[in-house]
Amino acid sequence: MVSKNQIKLITSLQHKKYRNEEQLFLAEGVKVIQELLLSNFVLEHLFVTEDIFPKVTTSQKTMIKEQDMKRISALSSPSSCLALFKIPKETNVENSGLIVALDDIRDPGNLGTIIRLCDWFGVKQLICSKETVDSYNPKVIQSTMGSIARVKVNYLDLEEYLSKSQLPVFGTFMDGKNVYKETLPTEGILVLGNEANGISAVLEKSIKNRIAIPRFGDLQQTESLNVATATAIFLSEFKRNS
Amino acid sequence: MVSKNQIKLITSLQHKKYRNEEQLFLAEGVKVIQELLLSNFVLEHLFVTEDIFPKVTTSQKTMIKEQDMKRISALSSPSSCLALFKIPKETNVENSGLIVALDDIRDPGNLGTIIRLCDWFGVKQLICSKETVDSYNPKVIQSTMGSIARVKVNYLDLEEYLSKSQLPVFGTFMDGKNVYKETLPTEGILVLGNEANGISAVLEKSIKNRIAIPRFGDLQQTESLNVATATAIFLSEFKRNS
Repeated sequence: MVSKNQIKLITSLQHKKYRNEEQLFLAEGVKVIQELLLSNFVLEHLFVTEDIFPKVTTSQKTMIKEQDMKRISALSSPSSCLALFKIPKETNVENSGLIVALDDIRDPGNLGTIIRLCDWFGVKQLICSKETVDSYNPKVIQSTMGSIARVKVNYLDLEEYLSKSQLPVFGTFMDGKNVYKETLPTEGILVLGNEANGISAVLEKSIKNRIAIPRFGDLQQTESLNVATATAIFLSEFKRNS
Repeated sequence: MVSKNQIKLITSLQHKKYRNEEQLFLAEGVKVIQELLLSNFVLEHLFVTEDIFPKVTTSQKTMIKEQDMKRISALSSPSSCLALFKIPKETNVENSGLIVALDDIRDPGNLGTIIRLCDWFGVKQLICSKETVDSYNPKVIQSTMGSIARVKVNYLDLEEYLSKSQLPVFGTFMDGKNVYKETLPTEGILVLGNEANGISAVLEKSIKNRIAIPRFGDLQQTESLNVATATAIFLSEFKRNS
C-alpha cells in the first residue's frame, strides 16, 4: 500500500527542486536498483510488486500492487520495482587520470549514456557545468543502467575549473585536429559541448588542444555526430593504447 | 487546411502496415526535410505552418495552422513542417567497401543513430535482418537527422546473406578479440546484434572474426555498451587508418 503522502513525495522527485529539498532521487528497474544497492548509495525506501531483493529489510521495503506502481512510476511501462535513494554529499573533484567535462549537455539520455561510457572506459570523474542536466534526473539514472554508482559527478563553474587546472585540456571542435593523428596523454580533461551549440565561447580560451573526429562520407552534409557517440569515439581514442 | 482524409492518411503512416500499403513515409523538422529534398527521395506532399522551402511548388505544398500541425504530427513538440515522401524501391545490395549488418535492432533511436554514424564514416550500405525496426519508422527518420538520404538500407535474410558473402565477416561479441589490436580490412561486413541478446546463435556460424571493445573500468559490472555507442567505436576503428 502506498499512502497519498508517499505518492506526492515520489512524483515530486521528478523535479530537481524537490530532489534538492528532500535530498532523494528515484531509481526504477531491477538492473539499476541492483547496481545502486551494491554501491555506496544509501537506500531510503524500496517499493516492489513482487518478492525481489530479499536482502533489503522489511522496514525498508513495501510490497505494492501493480496499479499503485503505475501511479508512482515515471516510466510508460513500469517495472517491478522503484526505489528512493539518498543523494550523497558532493565531495571534492579527483584531479587525476582522464576526466570528462560537459559544457551544458541538456538531454538526459545523452548524459546517462556518457556516464555509462565513462564507467566502461574507467573514467572516474565527470565534471558538469551548472547548466548541464541534473545527474539525478530519473531519465539520466535510467539510461546510466546503474553506472552512476561508479562514476563521480560534480557540478561546478567550468570556466573557473578549467582556467585553474594543471591538467592538459582537450576540447572537441568541428575544426579541431584529427584525433586519430594526435598523441593523447593518459591524464587530462576532455571537454564536450552542448548538443546544438558545441563548446561555449567563454570556455574556448581555456582549451589549448582542439580535436575532432574526421568525417569520412563523400558529401559534407552530415552536420555532426551526436554528443554521446562522439564521446564514445574520443574516450576510445584516449584509452586504446593504454 | 488539412482534410479529414489527409489526417487519416498521415497518422496511419506511423504504422509500418500502412507505410507499406501507401508506399509513403513521414518526415518532420526543417533539417530532416531539407536533406531529403536535396536527395533522390521523391516528395509526395509538404505541410508547413510558415513560408519555408520556397523551391517546393504550391501544388506540392499546403500552408496549415499550428493547431492542424499538432493533429498530424507525431512529435510532442511539432516543428513548422511535415512531409510525406515516397518509399523508394529496394535495389540490390552494393557488396563493396565496409558494410554494416544489424541483427534484430529493435529501438528506433538506435537504428537512427547507427544510420547517422554510417553516413559520417562513409558506410554506404546498411543491411538489416527482417526483424530489425523499419528504417521508415518516423522515430528512425527523426534521429537520422537526414542521413537516411545518403545510406542505403536493405532488409533481407541475414543468415543467407552472410553465408553467401565473399567479404570477410566481423561480429561483435563480449568474448571477442580486442578490436584495438586487430588489423581491420577496408572491405568487410561488421555485424552488430540485438540490444538485449546480441548476435543470434544462428548467425554466429557465419562469423569468422569475433571482435570486442575491451572494458577499462576496475569493476566488471558495466554490462555492455549501448549498441549505437559500440557501433561508433567499431566504425571508428575500421576507418581510423584509412
